[in-house]
Amino acid sequence: MSSQQFSSSLLEHAVNEFAKLPGIGRKTALRLVLHLLKLPEQEVEIFGNAFIQLRKEIVYCRVCHNISDTDVCHICSNPGRDHETICVVENIKDVMSIENTQQFRGLYHVLGGIISPMDGIGPGDLEIESLIQRASTKNVKEIILALSTTMEGDTTNFYIFRKLAPLNIKITTIARGIAIGDELEYADEVTLGRSILNRVEFTNSFK
Amino acid sequence: MSSQQFSSSLLEHAVNEFAKLPGIGRKTALRLVLHLLKLPEQEVEIFGNAFIQLRKEIVYCRVCHNISDTDVCHICSNPGRDHETICVVENIKDVMSIENTQQFRGLYHVLGGIISPMDGIGPGDLEIESLIQRASTKNVKEIILALSTTMEGDTTNFYIFRKLAPLNIKITTIARGIAIGDELEYADEVTLGRSILNRVEFTNSFK
Repeated sequence: MSSQQFSSSLLEHAVNEFAKLPGIGRKTALRLVLHLLKLPEQEVEIFGNAFIQLRKEIVYCRVCHNISDTDVCHICSNPGRDHETICVVENIKDVMSIENTQQFRGLYHVLGGIISPMDGIGPGDLEIESLIQRASTKNVKEIILALSTTMEGDTTNFYIFRKLAPLNIKITTIARGIAIGDELEYADEVTLGRSILNRVEFTNSFK
Repeated sequence: MSSQQFSSSLLEHAVNEFAKLPGIGRKTALRLVLHLLKLPEQEVEIFGNAFIQLRKEIVYCRVCHNISDTDVCHICSNPGRDHETICVVENIKDVMSIENTQQFRGLYHVLGGIISPMDGIGPGDLEIESLIQRASTKNVKEIILALSTTMEGDTTNFYIFRKLAPLNIKITTIARGIAIGDELEYADEVTLGRSILNRVEFTNSFK
């Protein structure tokens, strides 16, 4: 699509802005912009300002580094949560995923990435020092490492493990195994092997 | 996804706004918003304002009703275009598609839809009266009907044809036939039949 086809530079600019987003091509961008054009002016204003305001006013919780509206996020400031357990995750999406399960009542620690020398991300670029501090000063009993099962994730797990080891607190990682609903036949060997090694006792309450 | 999972109401609001767009689910919306969060504040401001400005300042050409930056669009005001030929299309996307072919040097007339009693769209809701006026007052020699090959498109074609008939100008429709690159085997019978009826003489310059 050449820029020539646009009969309005405003239209072209709006389409270009949409098409900058990952996964949005120019055809989709045009479709979305034409949709916005049909909406009342006020609604489009709310739409556009939502992102501007978010970017301007967003705060990261100074305890766990999760996205927040306040200096300390609603999870860290909630007395009903288990403040003795910290779940270490890569990014805020992971916090959302785990919150969605409604199986975890502890706190989080968002690293902001994982160690990846290929991408030039070292331990110093991540919130690891602040995790060590949290683990040492507070009455933390357990650190759960919930990173991706990739080489980078394993590297980061190991790095954090070595840093935390002197503190003598429980360090766990989330269970790896066959996903619920998956058939053994299609599971990869490493996962299947680990799921046998880490087998758990069968009980009636087993979910 | 419940709203509970969002650690920030600003984030939730931004995701909700994105998810209102057609074809954008909440997962995609979240991915796009998190992408915007990583951009510099100024870029996000440009992004958001692109749509607000477009919606506020957009003008429709008073001649052809295409989207425009000016009172009369750059196609209608271009003396290099063929002002004797008007191509009637349903919407501005069709103008872009035809402009993209670089095969048409005339002017357009955007109806703003097609006659569709099922959707409550009658001739009075479309720019048909203004088309008749253009066709009668200007030195227009030919009207090309380039609407969809649907029942609604055919109805609209026929309605416009009857309205234009008294003016004694040439009225044509775009050719229907086998798409270039298509195999006869997979063409529907109606299209194939029409492509035989409307066969054209084979020449060396045939494209």
